[in-house]
Amino acid sequence: MKTLHVGLIGSGFIGRAHAIALAGVGAVFPEIPAPVCELLADQDASKAQAAAAALGFRRSTGDWRELVADPAIDIVDICSPNYLHREMALAAIAAGKHIWCEKPLALDATEAREVAEAAARAGVRHLIGFNYSCNPLLGMAREIVSSGEIGAITGFSGRYFEDYMADPAVPHSWRCERRFAGAGALADLGSHLIDMAQVLLGPIASVQARLETIHRKRRVPASGASLPVENEDIALALVRFASGVGGTFEISRVATGFKCALSFTVFGTQGSLSFEQERMNELRLYSASDAAGRRGFRTILAGPDHPDYRFFCPAPGHGLGINDLKVIEARNLLRAIADGVPARPGFDVGLRVQLVMEAMERSHASGAWTSVPTG
Amino acid sequence: MKTLHVGLIGSGFIGRAHAIALAGVGAVFPEIPAPVCELLADQDASKAQAAAAALGFRRSTGDWRELVADPAIDIVDICSPNYLHREMALAAIAAGKHIWCEKPLALDATEAREVAEAAARAGVRHLIGFNYSCNPLLGMAREIVSSGEIGAITGFSGRYFEDYMADPAVPHSWRCERRFAGAGALADLGSHLIDMAQVLLGPIASVQARLETIHRKRRVPASGASLPVENEDIALALVRFASGVGGTFEISRVATGFKCALSFTVFGTQGSLSFEQERMNELRLYSASDAAGRRGFRTILAGPDHPDYRFFCPAPGHGLGINDLKVIEARNLLRAIADGVPARPGFDVGLRVQLVMEAMERSHASGAWTSVPTG
Amino acid sequence: MKTLHVGLIGSGFIGRAHAIALAGVGAVFPEIPAPVCELLADQDASKAQAAAAALGFRRSTGDWRELVADPAIDIVDICSPNYLHREMALAAIAAGKHIWCEKPLALDATEAREVAEAAARAGVRHLIGFNYSCNPLLGMAREIVSSGEIGAITGFSGRYFEDYMADPAVPHSWRCERRFAGAGALADLGSHLIDMAQVLLGPIASVQARLETIHRKRRVPASGASLPVENEDIALALVRFASGVGGTFEISRVATGFKCALSFTVFGTQGSLSFEQERMNELRLYSASDAAGRRGFRTILAGPDHPDYRFFCPAPGHGLGINDLKVIEARNLLRAIADGVPARPGFDVGLRVQLVMEAMERSHASGAWTSVPTG
Amino acid sequence: MKTLHVGLIGSGFIGRAHAIALAGVGAVFPEIPAPVCELLADQDASKAQAAAAALGFRRSTGDWRELVADPAIDIVDICSPNYLHREMALAAIAAGKHIWCEKPLALDATEAREVAEAAARAGVRHLIGFNYSCNPLLGMAREIVSSGEIGAITGFSGRYFEDYMADPAVPHSWRCERRFAGAGALADLGSHLIDMAQVLLGPIASVQARLETIHRKRRVPASGASLPVENEDIALALVRFASGVGGTFEISRVATGFKCALSFTVFGTQGSLSFEQERMNELRLYSASDAAGRRGFRTILAGPDHPDYRFFCPAPGHGLGINDLKVIEARNLLRAIADGVPARPGFDVGLRVQLVMEAMERSHASGAWTSVPTG
Repeated sequence: MKTLHVGLIGSGFIGRAHAIALAGVGAVFPEIPAPVCELLADQDASKAQAAAAALGFRRSTGDWRELVADPAIDIVDICSPNYLHREMALAAIAAGKHIWCEKPLALDATEAREVAEAAARAGVRHLIGFNYSCNPLLGMAREIVSSGEIGAITGFSGRYFEDYMADPAVPHSWRCERRFAGAGALADLGSHLIDMAQVLLGPIASVQARLETIHRKRRVPASGASLPVENEDIALALVRFASGVGGTFEISRVATGFKCALSFTVFGTQGSLSFEQERMNELRLYSASDAAGRRGFRTILAGPDHPDYRFFCPAPGHGLGINDLKVIEARNLLRAIADGVPARPGFDVGLRVQLVMEAMERSHASGAWTSVPTG
Repeated sequence: MKTLHVGLIGSGFIGRAHAIALAGVGAVFPEIPAPVCELLADQDASKAQAAAAALGFRRSTGDWRELVADPAIDIVDICSPNYLHREMALAAIAAGKHIWCEKPLALDATEAREVAEAAARAGVRHLIGFNYSCNPLLGMAREIVSSGEIGAITGFSGRYFEDYMADPAVPHSWRCERRFAGAGALADLGSHLIDMAQVLLGPIASVQARLETIHRKRRVPASGASLPVENEDIALALVRFASGVGGTFEISRVATGFKCALSFTVFGTQGSLSFEQERMNELRLYSASDAAGRRGFRTILAGPDHPDYRFFCPAPGHGLGINDLKVIEARNLLRAIADGVPARPGFDVGLRVQLVMEAMERSHASGAWTSVPTG
Repeated sequence: MKTLHVGLIGSGFIGRAHAIALAGVGAVFPEIPAPVCELLADQDASKAQAAAAALGFRRSTGDWRELVADPAIDIVDICSPNYLHREMALAAIAAGKHIWCEKPLALDATEAREVAEAAARAGVRHLIGFNYSCNPLLGMAREIVSSGEIGAITGFSGRYFEDYMADPAVPHSWRCERRFAGAGALADLGSHLIDMAQVLLGPIASVQARLETIHRKRRVPASGASLPVENEDIALALVRFASGVGGTFEISRVATGFKCALSFTVFGTQGSLSFEQERMNELRLYSASDAAGRRGFRTILAGPDHPDYRFFCPAPGHGLGINDLKVIEARNLLRAIADGVPARPGFDVGLRVQLVMEAMERSHASGAWTSVPTG
Repeated sequence: MKTLHVGLIGSGFIGRAHAIALAGVGAVFPEIPAPVCELLADQDASKAQAAAAALGFRRSTGDWRELVADPAIDIVDICSPNYLHREMALAAIAAGKHIWCEKPLALDATEAREVAEAAARAGVRHLIGFNYSCNPLLGMAREIVSSGEIGAITGFSGRYFEDYMADPAVPHSWRCERRFAGAGALADLGSHLIDMAQVLLGPIASVQARLETIHRKRRVPASGASLPVENEDIALALVRFASGVGGTFEISRVATGFKCALSFTVFGTQGSLSFEQERMNELRLYSASDAAGRRGFRTILAGPDHPDYRFFCPAPGHGLGINDLKVIEARNLLRAIADGVPARPGFDVGLRVQLVMEAMERSHASGAWTSVPTG
């Protein structure tokens, strides 16, 4: 396997998470040659230089186009603000680079389709950052659902609650503006929930949604002015999967007290399973076939019996963290490049998530059940 | 305070729960003279006689009309199958009796309004059996919500999951027929959730609902024939309270693994609180005003600081049970009779719950947001 | 079955709990004729009269000896302060009455043996109030342990934490004096834990204990004086069962934050089970024979599959409360009287618990492993 | 700050964990220059070469003495089997290298003292691998305990349960032999618990312990012979801290169902706090000063308010994993080297833990309370 050279665009929160994952992926997964952290691009040359030093990249640049054009780069890793994803991805595709792109793929479905189609045509490998579904317990959940172990699936209940915008005093920022952020809680949080739901139960066919902005204005710290918040704090939906199964989504960035409360329950005729990200090393499974008097939800701790866990630790119950999920995600891309197969979740997944989000927005506007285009 | 004499109609599951509550209420609440378990009516005289002996009633009858007409009876306690509630309640009202009636008040809102209005006109005391909201912790939750302790309310997430119909092999019964049961999960379970939501956040103004029957036919044990299930297994809804607050309801009688999972979260700008009936002695409260690094949901154990708990036990954390909630419910009626004030929850509450249920049914039929009549 | 008439001595906290149980036991267990609450004795006639009215007793007396001598009384129910138990029990035995006696049986093992032997000789039925082990889930736990379902037992970890004396400002009271209370946390809390351990794993053979009084003086509200606390706040022990199994006990009445935290884990070669009283409707069971990747502690909710639960409620997960355990306890005595068999837990159990407590006290004094006399 | 070059001895489970930490520490903590993974030693040259390639080390050797002598090496990282720790550490000290050594420091206290004293004399930096106490929530727990936030400390309850030897079919291995492993559960698990207890409450002064080997023989797979297990499966103890506070330890490697159940509760007069490693991102805190009716254990999710968390993730509740603790541990050593100050936990800590372990062994042998030498 060839050693791959990565060019990272952006060194904020999520850029650092990617850098940490790239640093560790080789040691965690001995099957994968450690990628080389080659070049880091940020807004200006001096910021990029400092970030490259801190994050272990060999070189830096203040111009992302230079990075995309650099012949030494195999993978363009896009961790810039949302509104730049499309342009950078298209440029990287045009340059024949493989791409690791943070979610969302673009600000709307039209853009997302443009990017996904370009990537498909170019034949490059592409992966979008839905890290939560890289959890080993999700792999097992998927297996339990698809194998029929809990019988026929009869429902899905999903939530993603955080509270980073719950305080009315949180200032106005790019997150509140559609041109920079696109949707609000739906894009930040809902996209992960939609991905996870579709990973488990397949495509969503129709939705009935209601969006709400609790804090309609927020103060700009510099000027003291109050500016409108252009996107939603809360998104609630009834959903219908293509399989006929029904369910609910609850998404909020103003859910006081909840920090990373991505959770779901899948109901089946013979069992159920529940997961919550705040206890990401536990999966709860109920099996109707357990003996009488002894039935109950089992709290299964992640361990070497679950996909990929053993690469991090040989002992069960010792606990993975959020950054470990990014390491698995990085491995998924590197492995796909080595094997010449599509990475999962690819840009097509990013597009399908975007289509569900937009169907929810349209449903809110019309008050009616709304179909999700098939992609 | 006068000693009150009770006539109980029905000695099934819920009739027994009432009998247990009536037996204990005097000892638990010394302020209340123990009521006299006077007369028990059931389908036939011999069954009634056996039940009266078992449940500690002085006399018995095979004719409920005799019970309603009995001058010794102060309170008619209706624990018969749902479809008989209306007729019995109207008869009891006509006879000037106070009434303790199990939910639902009737099979539809038209009937429920008829009963509620008759009771109001007659000036008798009336109480409908929404026992879960008698929980001391609910009293405290209501106080926290209404006092502004968690700030302005921004959302409600409610669920009631059980699994008593999850197994496709559960036979066909009266529960599956509209003429006997009315609605399905919505009546059995949803009515409790709707009551609790309205206790906490006030009236619901509009709904967008979807109902579903997972097991569309069930087998009749005697004949072996498969008969259609006429009411829903699952009811999901987006809701809007009159206050403007939005939320969700998820109701299912086929939620494998869940036994009495009535739960809710109320979100506020300064805190949140969560409750689940399966851990009915715990309330979880998050307060944004706790010190930095020390914020988290507190698991508050029911204790003498919470309404009514101290009558059961002077020590906190020792635990009340479901039947204790019925004792509080009985006390509420007896107290209201003694004080000459309306009991809570009265038939008006039963009607308002029924109106929400029917709005959900209409919304399902139309696919549109549907207003709840104001009563 | 004969209707039994009860004479209750004492109307404090625990007396009221007995009265509530006696009021309900007939309705809960139709097999048992409701006992008659005949006579209540308390310190003086007027207090007794008020209590009798409040708790539903027919008659009252200010003299407990009158109650014991009353020919109408079948069962003497002793809910007086600890230091009176022995004298009252001996008098009741002498009068040929059956006895329901709150724990502890006496202030020390010598007295306890005297009472237990007198009761045995007299052939009356006797029951001591270890209510926690009446929990339906304990019945199941016992079955799981004794059937070998979790393999050979390899350990026991038990705790009982409360915090009713944690605050140094809790005033001095009879609980702090040996002549009135006997031991401290060991008597109040430890006795329950010892009983439960012996119910599950059989007799304890030897102990190594350490007792500690955290708050050595407490203030008498009336006088303002500080008086010494004569018994322990905390008792810790290593224990050895006669079977050879080892374990630990931790007992504290100053465990800030814990309200009724009686808990245990039983370890076996093929599984483990855990229980905590603050979630008294849950038993956690781990089975090593579950499938790979799917092993975990199951949270089993109490339900009709567990002994006695169905008499309270036909549906699982609806929850019993602490007072329901007293109802089961009352049934156990009434049933034993009807059947002419020993009640469980009888005074012999009370004696064996006392012997373990005293071995712990002696071990503390000597610093050495100490054998428990075999009774 | 100088870039430091690391030589790693051993590439098993724990060696890999160190390699992963070394790969990531620079990206996580920008203040620290990423160390260079220079040289890896393992039992033979070809195994070492393969491991070096897999784990990202530049060079390899089959001779650990070569590594220790290599002038390019700044830090010797000892991840070999326990019985080799002493010899390697002494050699590294003699060569003037800084040392990262996995626990235990040696097989007994005599050896541990020899190593600790040699390291102190040589003035090299040294750190022993008690990773669990690097948890950000432990930092906060320590602050809460030492600041008096929960009042005067009144007790400690600690446990470490795993089940890796619970199955009698687990084969005989080096872990069962004293010459290779030293103690059993006490060394593997107990050492972590002892460290954590001492981090929180200071030195342990005396112990009363009981050790037990449940499975006294295990089968050697190759020969089929059954060989004796020379060390304990279970260690239980009553403990006394130098401060006078009492407590308990329960340690087991045969605790069926428990995977990484290192847990403790610290009791104070004004509050308590509890932690369990299986939910390593949660700390439970009870504060007696919360308002009446609203007291309860708070479940605090790890977040940027807690030490070091923010370097991994800017958002609370997203979760660290076990390997992240090793990254913090690595940072602690690198930082100490850069600053020229002692690293924590140093070999002196390793010695003090060993002294407690041996006092427990002596107590078991004598059956008496046993003092821990002051080091």
